Amino acid sequence: MTMATPAQCTPRSTAPQILDRCRELVHPALTAAIGRLHPWPGEMAAYALGWSEADGKPVGSPGKGVRQALTVLCAEAAGAPGETAIAGAVAVELIHTFTLLHDDIMDGDETRRQRETVWKAYGTGPAVLTGDALFALAVETLADSPNAHSGTAVRHLARALNDLVRGQAEDLLFEARPWTGPEAVRPEEYRSMADRKTGALLGCAAALGAVLAGAPSPTVDALARAGRHLGVAFQTVDDLLGIWGDPEATGKPVHNDLRRMKKTYPVIAALAAKGPATRSLTALLTSPHPLDDAALRHAAVLIEEAGGRSAALAEARRHVGIVLGCLDSVRLSPDAAEDIRTLLPFLVDRRM
Amino acid sequence: MTMATPAQCTPRSTAPQILDRCRELVHPALTAAIGRLHPWPGEMAAYALGWSEADGKPVGSPGKGVRQALTVLCAEAAGAPGETAIAGAVAVELIHTFTLLHDDIMDGDETRRQRETVWKAYGTGPAVLTGDALFALAVETLADSPNAHSGTAVRHLARALNDLVRGQAEDLLFEARPWTGPEAVRPEEYRSMADRKTGALLGCAAALGAVLAGAPSPTVDALARAGRHLGVAFQTVDDLLGIWGDPEATGKPVHNDLRRMKKTYPVIAALAAKGPATRSLTALLTSPHPLDDAALRHAAVLIEEAGGRSAALAEARRHVGIVLGCLDSVRLSPDAAEDIRTLLPFLVDRRM
Repeated sequence: MTMATPAQCTPRSTAPQILDRCRELVHPALTAAIGRLHPWPGEMAAYALGWSEADGKPVGSPGKGVRQALTVLCAEAAGAPGETAIAGAVAVELIHTFTLLHDDIMDGDETRRQRETVWKAYGTGPAVLTGDALFALAVETLADSPNAHSGTAVRHLARALNDLVRGQAEDLLFEARPWTGPEAVRPEEYRSMADRKTGALLGCAAALGAVLAGAPSPTVDALARAGRHLGVAFQTVDDLLGIWGDPEATGKPVHNDLRRMKKTYPVIAALAAKGPATRSLTALLTSPHPLDDAALRHAAVLIEEAGGRSAALAEARRHVGIVLGCLDSVRLSPDAAEDIRTLLPFLVDRRM
Repeated sequence: MTMATPAQCTPRSTAPQILDRCRELVHPALTAAIGRLHPWPGEMAAYALGWSEADGKPVGSPGKGVRQALTVLCAEAAGAPGETAIAGAVAVELIHTFTLLHDDIMDGDETRRQRETVWKAYGTGPAVLTGDALFALAVETLADSPNAHSGTAVRHLARALNDLVRGQAEDLLFEARPWTGPEAVRPEEYRSMADRKTGALLGCAAALGAVLAGAPSPTVDALARAGRHLGVAFQTVDDLLGIWGDPEATGKPVHNDLRRMKKTYPVIAALAAKGPATRSLTALLTSPHPLDDAALRHAAVLIEEAGGRSAALAEARRHVGIVLGCLDSVRLSPDAAEDIRTLLPFLVDRRM
């Protein structure tokens, strides 16, 4: 274990410190990339990234930057300096922002992180344009990287992009399906959707770190798999927050997902259970009347009583267990692997 | 000139025959690519490509396929079989379809080729999704191609994508600018926009053919330049059709561009002229009242009287002249170069 620095010799960083370090490492390149955009989509991209307000004034609350951190940490875990993977970190952060912009249009979501979404603040057409600009910029950033493995990295990114579009298509189609009966969304269909919609990009973020670090295939595969399962855990937690999260913290209206008939894991699990709460929930959700606020509150209580909340938490933790198994399955630089492990509870238990 | 087969020995193909041959060569791979999409965006993509109606029923009127033909012909011009460049031809055709889908959303265009646009037929969200799916598919198709030059090809595509998003941003912003005064759009600004919005993808189509054929840099550069100028010629002709084209042939409402304050070349040229028609046109366009159908018809007459129509035609032909110069500047396989030359008048004089 020549790469090892015993973890106990250095004081461990906290999850926010780890995210801050990675964000600071990537920030100059991300800023330079956004600076290459036409100023108009550039302004909207800065707004979407939380760098400025709609009037262009600066603001200081960027997103957590989980994806860029994963790329940096996976490069380090594969034994290279985090700097090696900066182009990959920039690309995944740009793609993540692109998906938020376009998904908010498709979902009709008007708020994100307590602010108007881009389409709401600037209009649908400009938001479509800015998403496209970020998408193109991500591909260019990675393809133009002087890293010897950038061609392989672009192939990983392209595959992830196809997966995440497919996952978004599945998620949108789920909304039109009934809550019960043979056409209802099954838990395995949910998992497949979440694996694509959220897992693909986190898996890609991890893979890009390893690929750009020149890691051997088994290491790339193990880290990519860890990233995908982290993504599914992440999506399941998002589902929990969509029902029981504090709107102050999530920045989205309460019960938004339920109102939209979104087939999220807690509901699917609650409806798949047996017992009086499941029967009451089924009757409530399949009633011909649209659900008002009181009915939505009641639905949330019934989902919890039917075990949907604990099942989703267990599902998220099961995927975190798989992530840990992946990290243990290959030889990694222990400091970076420990940083990834430190992030897991922070990401999965956030605001619960 | 060892590559030469004297053109007079073989009967020359007509432009429609050349386009048909290229389309048939590319079609199986394009169909296979669309088949890899999720069935829902796949159905919308087939509709956008003119392969089927909104109810899924087959229809037989695909687009001309200019971009795919250019890729195939430029590979042949560089001395390789057209088959070498099929992945490039598929990629540019997918990207072209993606831009039509998203541009129609941004421009609010409800009809294209006598049919409802995708957002009008299926909804804005699904149209955004399908555009994204085509974009991702294009990058994946090219990145996964076994061609030894696919990495270089992806870099060309990424650069073109950034250019065309920038061109679309400029075109949208032009709409909000006044017809006259210091803020008016200048002819050179128009050219720069058209070079990006339309030239970038045609330049990329040509470059990809040459790159995938393994052509040396000067050949790639000359063909890319030819493609870009063909694109500007193409855009200028589109502008002419947007004012004087037969709506039956263009599939768009008459005077659509004028109504939307689109800063097209004939209007810019007419306003830059001097004389009574220019003065009347200026007064009409800057009047505070929205233009009704009669005023739009009158504006079209004044643009023609002020020389806007002939200036735009001359501009299109000037760019075709540059295309011909580019083709003559490097050594090309004469049959393929002749095919490209055969296409030029067909593309530029269409429906005028």
